[in-house]
Amino acid sequence: MTGSQKTRDMLGRDQLTQVSVARQRLLSELKAITPPQETVELVQALGRISSQDITSPEDLPNTDRSTMDGYAVVATDTFGASQSLPAYLDITGEVFMGMMPEGAIHRGSCYKIPTGGLLPEGADGVVMHEHTVPVDEKLIEVVKGIGSGTNVIRKGDDIRFGDLAIAAGRRLRAQELGLLAGLGIAELSVFKKIRVGIVSTGDEIIDFKAPIAPGKIRNINSIALSGLINQCGVEVVDYGIVADDESIFFSTIEKAVNETELVLFSGGSSVGMRDLGEQAIERMGQPGILVHGVSLKPGKPVIIGLCEHTPIFGLPGHPVSAMVCFDLFVRPAISALSGCPLDSTDFQAIVQARLMRNINSAAGRLDVIRVQLVQEEDTLLAYPVLGRSGAISTLSKAQGYFFIEEDSQGVSQEELVEVYLYQ
Amino acid sequence: MTGSQKTRDMLGRDQLTQVSVARQRLLSELKAITPPQETVELVQALGRISSQDITSPEDLPNTDRSTMDGYAVVATDTFGASQSLPAYLDITGEVFMGMMPEGAIHRGSCYKIPTGGLLPEGADGVVMHEHTVPVDEKLIEVVKGIGSGTNVIRKGDDIRFGDLAIAAGRRLRAQELGLLAGLGIAELSVFKKIRVGIVSTGDEIIDFKAPIAPGKIRNINSIALSGLINQCGVEVVDYGIVADDESIFFSTIEKAVNETELVLFSGGSSVGMRDLGEQAIERMGQPGILVHGVSLKPGKPVIIGLCEHTPIFGLPGHPVSAMVCFDLFVRPAISALSGCPLDSTDFQAIVQARLMRNINSAAGRLDVIRVQLVQEEDTLLAYPVLGRSGAISTLSKAQGYFFIEEDSQGVSQEELVEVYLYQ
Repeated sequence: MTGSQKTRDMLGRDQLTQVSVARQRLLSELKAITPPQETVELVQALGRISSQDITSPEDLPNTDRSTMDGYAVVATDTFGASQSLPAYLDITGEVFMGMMPEGAIHRGSCYKIPTGGLLPEGADGVVMHEHTVPVDEKLIEVVKGIGSGTNVIRKGDDIRFGDLAIAAGRRLRAQELGLLAGLGIAELSVFKKIRVGIVSTGDEIIDFKAPIAPGKIRNINSIALSGLINQCGVEVVDYGIVADDESIFFSTIEKAVNETELVLFSGGSSVGMRDLGEQAIERMGQPGILVHGVSLKPGKPVIIGLCEHTPIFGLPGHPVSAMVCFDLFVRPAISALSGCPLDSTDFQAIVQARLMRNINSAAGRLDVIRVQLVQEEDTLLAYPVLGRSGAISTLSKAQGYFFIEEDSQGVSQEELVEVYLYQ
Repeated sequence: MTGSQKTRDMLGRDQLTQVSVARQRLLSELKAITPPQETVELVQALGRISSQDITSPEDLPNTDRSTMDGYAVVATDTFGASQSLPAYLDITGEVFMGMMPEGAIHRGSCYKIPTGGLLPEGADGVVMHEHTVPVDEKLIEVVKGIGSGTNVIRKGDDIRFGDLAIAAGRRLRAQELGLLAGLGIAELSVFKKIRVGIVSTGDEIIDFKAPIAPGKIRNINSIALSGLINQCGVEVVDYGIVADDESIFFSTIEKAVNETELVLFSGGSSVGMRDLGEQAIERMGQPGILVHGVSLKPGKPVIIGLCEHTPIFGLPGHPVSAMVCFDLFVRPAISALSGCPLDSTDFQAIVQARLMRNINSAAGRLDVIRVQLVQEEDTLLAYPVLGRSGAISTLSKAQGYFFIEEDSQGVSQEELVEVYLYQ
């Protein structure tokens, strides 16, 4: 085995790795990988990660504009104006949205101007509509004086030519697309979408559409993992179901490693199959296996390996365990390979909820407890989804999960827990 | 105006509607609309809403199975077995994954069995591997007795034929797809994806790719709103930019109402354009305008109307205001028209954060304060994104927002606020 000497515990099992150590080991390897880039049109960029700093190609606004409905004036004309001593200004023109103002303003005159309208030549401020009183169609009283620049946004005040608009590594939400559209940026560099290969193993696994036969189990993991992968915004390549056959399994893993950027195989919790999984990873090249078995429930038998730049994960066959391992290990790896920095501004959605029963946990092990959430007035109640080991009917009951840390032996009813929401 | 008599406040403005009242008025109208259904393949169903209750077409598991690695036995053979007084059993066979066990177990004999293996005829329990000691290849000692049914999941224990698997109105996450795959359900009824029509208005608005000219503003809203709509999992039809021309605007709105299930127009904050928006909604049929102007900042001038079954929203032209109105009014409407019940089990992602400066608010108005979040050790810090009115450079700075309720006049620095996370 590469990289670490294994020790065995009293029951003859390999020593388990702590979840945080396993993640650290994986992510520090992935940090060295720079994902490839591509250019996409802005309208196709939702959810992608910018691969380069984007600077503004222009001043915004590109001319001085009014930020209020009112009258464009020469500010000194209004100095000291008040209700009792208003300033009188002639209305000599009007600014229309989207058009260059005609002519110019001289001392003692003003133009009517809408919010967003271009400041006419000669004007240096805008008096709000509410601070004027019409005398007739051609004359207003200004009842509150303004200074130069009042209610005006100057050329480049919002964003200046050459300013950083979007930093590399940002996930592009609707807001970022809006900002880039505002700057006239029609295409940009993003990191390429990775492809994730899925291989299901096990002699008992059949296509989920096939007629069921005694002893067979429908393939849940390919569908469920595909869903999780799609939610990450990346692509799935499904390599189907491979029986516990060494040569077919090895060649399928090899094909997946060659064709995709990240490979998951699931199932094969039998000792023989676990050995095959280890061998498949070791055969594919350096550094090989990073982690084999974590102190985690559920999800203990997970295998994490790396073959040059391609992470390979051996996930447990049980769908609940496979999905827990996906959240803890695969999702951060997809993020890293997609160009999202680890200090990304994406915040994980967490809610506080009141635990509705005692949950025990073995010390030294990270427990992931799935919960059903019920809103009761101002409080969220968290009911642990326990179910029988292996029950797939529990799959859809949880809205999220919380952790019982390694140093804890359980959480009591009524305690507040931090629930990570599923997407 | 339909439905409500308008009053004017001291400044001559129409009376504003409270946000909660406006939402209530909108959503109670939408409750009466049953969206159309369609049948989709399971692999295409991620994110869709089930339109019918789905019951299990089979018992799961379909035969009794072991939940442990160990030995299938006749439980009475092990009664009273202990370390000091073990029971001896002959190994007469083995169960292989995915295969029917051959033969049957008789008193005094056992079969080796893996987790998930079918219980052989005659066996009624499984002794864990850890509670056995091999004597030779054909004989084991059982050092702990079991009862009938121990470590066995019976036919239908997980989910029984005819049990409810997924209720109508559920959003289908990866977990639900996994459960349905496990039951062999290859296609299902879901509510149809709605189409949302977008119309941008304003003489100053130009296509975001066009060369900028003085007085013109690039079209941000079409791109930003399309992004938000896509994140809701529904489709966008973009009707482009319409100048402030009555006949073209009316005919575009009419086309959008006929071709899509929900229509947004944005821009036109000028008085003339607001009037046109009102008229366009009233022309399209009953019940017409539901809300015109809400006590909300930003987002006050929003117009909400309904033409038979099609909601029409007039959003403010400023992108930040338009996005706030989208979150508060359009998103719940899309949800309702997509078949998601209002008491859905989707929980909004909220985090607690410490506010980093005082924010004042006018009483009687709901303020939406966008914040930038910074993780500092165990605490999330919330820095309000203020920026100049109209600054689009602030668009991408916020990770979420919090509310200052109508009955509050502000929130002080250091107070904890509940931040709704943007997607």
